[in-house]
Amino acid sequence: MINTFCRTPLWEASRTLSAVAGGFQPADLVITHANLVNVCTHEIMEDISVAVSCGRIALVGNADHCVGEATEVVDAAGQYLAPGFLDGHIHVESSMMSVGEYARAVIPHGTVGIYMDPHEICNVLGLDGVKCMLEDASRTPLKAMLTTPSCVPAVPGFEDTGSSIGPEQIAETMNWKACVGLGEMMNFPGVLSSSDHAHDIIGATLKAGKIVTGHYSLPETGKGLNAYIASGVRCCHESTRMEDALAKMRLGMYAMLREGSAWHDLKEVARCITEHQIDTRFAVLVSDDAHPHTLLSQGHLDHIVRRAAEEGIDAITAIQMVTINCAQCFQMDHDLGSVAPGKCADLVLIDNLTDLNVTKVWIDGELTAENGVMLKDMPPYAYPDWATHSMHIGETITKDTFRIPADKSEETVRVIEVIPAKVGSLERHAVLRSSKGFLESDPAQDVLKTVVFERHHNTGKKGFGFVRGFGITCGAMASTVAHDAHNLLVIGTNDDDMALAANTLIQCGGGMTAVQNGKVLGTVALPIAGLMNDLSAEEMSRMVEKLENAWRQIGCSMPSPFMTMALIPLACLPELRLTDRGLVDCTAFRFVPLKTDSK
Amino acid sequence: MINTFCRTPLWEASRTLSAVAGGFQPADLVITHANLVNVCTHEIMEDISVAVSCGRIALVGNADHCVGEATEVVDAAGQYLAPGFLDGHIHVESSMMSVGEYARAVIPHGTVGIYMDPHEICNVLGLDGVKCMLEDASRTPLKAMLTTPSCVPAVPGFEDTGSSIGPEQIAETMNWKACVGLGEMMNFPGVLSSSDHAHDIIGATLKAGKIVTGHYSLPETGKGLNAYIASGVRCCHESTRMEDALAKMRLGMYAMLREGSAWHDLKEVARCITEHQIDTRFAVLVSDDAHPHTLLSQGHLDHIVRRAAEEGIDAITAIQMVTINCAQCFQMDHDLGSVAPGKCADLVLIDNLTDLNVTKVWIDGELTAENGVMLKDMPPYAYPDWATHSMHIGETITKDTFRIPADKSEETVRVIEVIPAKVGSLERHAVLRSSKGFLESDPAQDVLKTVVFERHHNTGKKGFGFVRGFGITCGAMASTVAHDAHNLLVIGTNDDDMALAANTLIQCGGGMTAVQNGKVLGTVALPIAGLMNDLSAEEMSRMVEKLENAWRQIGCSMPSPFMTMALIPLACLPELRLTDRGLVDCTAFRFVPLKTDSK
Repeated sequence: MINTFCRTPLWEASRTLSAVAGGFQPADLVITHANLVNVCTHEIMEDISVAVSCGRIALVGNADHCVGEATEVVDAAGQYLAPGFLDGHIHVESSMMSVGEYARAVIPHGTVGIYMDPHEICNVLGLDGVKCMLEDASRTPLKAMLTTPSCVPAVPGFEDTGSSIGPEQIAETMNWKACVGLGEMMNFPGVLSSSDHAHDIIGATLKAGKIVTGHYSLPETGKGLNAYIASGVRCCHESTRMEDALAKMRLGMYAMLREGSAWHDLKEVARCITEHQIDTRFAVLVSDDAHPHTLLSQGHLDHIVRRAAEEGIDAITAIQMVTINCAQCFQMDHDLGSVAPGKCADLVLIDNLTDLNVTKVWIDGELTAENGVMLKDMPPYAYPDWATHSMHIGETITKDTFRIPADKSEETVRVIEVIPAKVGSLERHAVLRSSKGFLESDPAQDVLKTVVFERHHNTGKKGFGFVRGFGITCGAMASTVAHDAHNLLVIGTNDDDMALAANTLIQCGGGMTAVQNGKVLGTVALPIAGLMNDLSAEEMSRMVEKLENAWRQIGCSMPSPFMTMALIPLACLPELRLTDRGLVDCTAFRFVPLKTDSK
Repeated sequence: MINTFCRTPLWEASRTLSAVAGGFQPADLVITHANLVNVCTHEIMEDISVAVSCGRIALVGNADHCVGEATEVVDAAGQYLAPGFLDGHIHVESSMMSVGEYARAVIPHGTVGIYMDPHEICNVLGLDGVKCMLEDASRTPLKAMLTTPSCVPAVPGFEDTGSSIGPEQIAETMNWKACVGLGEMMNFPGVLSSSDHAHDIIGATLKAGKIVTGHYSLPETGKGLNAYIASGVRCCHESTRMEDALAKMRLGMYAMLREGSAWHDLKEVARCITEHQIDTRFAVLVSDDAHPHTLLSQGHLDHIVRRAAEEGIDAITAIQMVTINCAQCFQMDHDLGSVAPGKCADLVLIDNLTDLNVTKVWIDGELTAENGVMLKDMPPYAYPDWATHSMHIGETITKDTFRIPADKSEETVRVIEVIPAKVGSLERHAVLRSSKGFLESDPAQDVLKTVVFERHHNTGKKGFGFVRGFGITCGAMASTVAHDAHNLLVIGTNDDDMALAANTLIQCGGGMTAVQNGKVLGTVALPIAGLMNDLSAEEMSRMVEKLENAWRQIGCSMPSPFMTMALIPLACLPELRLTDRGLVDCTAFRFVPLKTDSK
């Protein structure tokens, strides 16, 4: 695969690199006295120098002869020099930040490249939205490599999304310079049932010689997993059991071990390495999602490498898992993932292999971050108007919009019971009393009215339901981060506050809000597609914190309530979900009525 | 890289594979009760079954549900199932056999794919000759993957070859289906001196997203090796010292450890693995050259894996070195090199990991060899007339052709002294007495007249010289296997026999011969480009044996004399060489006169 993410293609730089290595021309940069983390041979090599020219590595070893008058010499003074870190699977939208601000947050932690799956924006704005994110990314030093979203919509026929992507569009994106493969193929049921749609999408990627990334979340490692891998899926980040990750590697699949802000798989899945004497070349560490607070307080891949070490994986192996192993997974190891001649000069300096504090980061040979601070200015990028005005709801929302007529004085309704910090939900039933001919939330039972508004095409479609598990006693909350269609989701104890919450988000272009008694307690505005904001990680983190306080104020004690809320419409997860089209029984994959006695 | 060497591209097979893995459709083949050599995780997994369909692996594990009425079931009965072996660097011409017969010889030893560099035929017949070899290969089950010869001619300006290949031709071949990269870039001086020609050839390969294979034979691991690797060269099979191979791996270069018929590097270079606790993913085992006798008596990659084990490399690691490591080097690991779902069903069954007897070989799911015998019939392939009539010498050769006029009664001449079983030569001087006004061979001093005839373009060019070291006391020998131009080389004690030897080869279209007193003692006819014959390995081996006897009969006690002889014209090796243009001082790279007192 031709990598277009380097400052200079190797075939343009090779004469100069030869000359620099040979001592006929001075290097741009020489880093001296480093302990090299050699990910090729799994060794620490002492007192190594690295010469850089044209943004690439010309020489590794003794570089005295590469130093000229104009050469910048950096004394590593015994610190550890490693290849820049690569995140093999990340949804930037999960950070709620623009790619530019995301880059500013992660680069100081040693991240030089990400394989991003902009699945969320694609559901809202289609491939045009993906192009915006790529433009945003192109102003940053971060190598933001696209894996085209494979499943838009995620659950066809059960929700209305802003866009729909088929095999033809997938094939088209494979010609994009930034595209290195296919985003996580969540439609594993389609793959396993030999669906043409699923296999055509994978096939379009394979035909282009690019990488198919996976999502196989079943605790099943026999015929299903084999069928999935046999279709050409090369990696998967959905192992939550050690035996799943191990089975994947044994079947030649890259096991991407995840330690994100929301999903902490590593404690369990690291055992596939620590308890087995296996070749670890098929193991990769990824984040999948990263919240601003995590990035600020813990870090990014540096944090995940530390976590891997805490679980007993040796530090060099852990670093291989965010460098060469990832580059080999994407068949981009000729350009990325190792400190070796000809490779991009993407380098991190680490104080020691225990604390793993990243002190310097070079990308394409340029010092890009130092001591936790990004050094490079980025030109501003403004998302176009249509991307920042994505709230297209076909009606004026008032308190009346939320009315659910009652047919009887008491009715039994289906209730989605969410489980804190888990992705699953349960179908429960609750008896509600009619109030003036309408069904209302019943905080005493923790049963809250929930509405999903189609927000992409002004269709006016909306789905009604009830949820349990948030513990809200007053007020309402709303969000446009509502997987995967990202319609407008509103939950509340009363219709007035629900209308306020909905209109607050409509006004600010989407986001997340909590209101109480006619007052907005906190809002995270996400005007870019209703998913992101171009504020800094610090500002985003502050806004999120304020919202979390608001959440607690209205009675919710759940950790990461917006994460749980965001999954309410995700109709590919069991058992009961609510989309703009109505309640979905996600085990039988059919719509079910709100009232249990309806047909 | 898109692999076109599999029976069915994955995107055409994936629906069927999913169905087979899921048990919805029976497999074509199920192999049961195998000890799987898992090269992905470096483990032996017991009692494993493998299901195959469309020539690819559908499932690895328990395959009971994949067996239908028409499924062929093979009980491995506890034998070891490994991926088919890949030879990362081989010149098929070194076997003197056509690709078809070469395939028939190596497949029963477990070889399913070769990365061939048809450098020799390209020097004689150009890219048209390469195409012939690819056509020959295409009738065989062997995956013969082309690396386009990079250095034709090898030493421009010092010899006349049949063809000359520049960056434009290289770029053209990168569009060929069979081409996966560039053949060994022997012009490392050009790379190190930033020569446009050398870098353009490498660049044409990199631009096509393909692999540049290397040849860096200096015992230097500092600036030179760095400069070479920085140019984009991914692998090298020219390490003869342990430290060279180790340095290459540390610099992210695949170290191809060689154990060929002529070059036995493994004893020394295996130490880079056995004496260092390194990650071995960058280590590959290759043959580089393979004579018919070696293939028959010892084997091919199976033999090399055994040799690696003898040197202390554990068997699984050694098998990784001819499977997944090689496939990853060529970025073809998505199709080749492991026993995993979706991969080509290229499989070998091995009796045990000590003796490593290959009992069965499947290629693309078809049983292709069993117990040392190739099972598949191949359609015949006839090389075209122009390929089997490549002797174009611009004069009628008689004894007078070999006359070297003497200017004085005694003359001092330069003599090429060959060193048995080494590639180098030394420049010596000898005093010869004039006989009837001519300089003649002097067997008493072991100084033999040597002539190289241009044989490609009827130019009538010829170079005269003398050699020492063969010990021939009577008769003459000739060969058209004369690196790299493969002109007609004749060495002899008298002009009559030299003429007979030359004309014998002209008549049979090239080859190797030994004559004595007007009688041909033995000839290996190589009518295909003067390099190959389409006889079987057994027949070739017999012919070679007969020629070796003839060689001994005329007084030569040197081991592999034709190997040594073949290097006499190779003007890139020190110190003194003879081409059709004359004697070359290969340290100063200039022509020198035969007589030391000439200017």
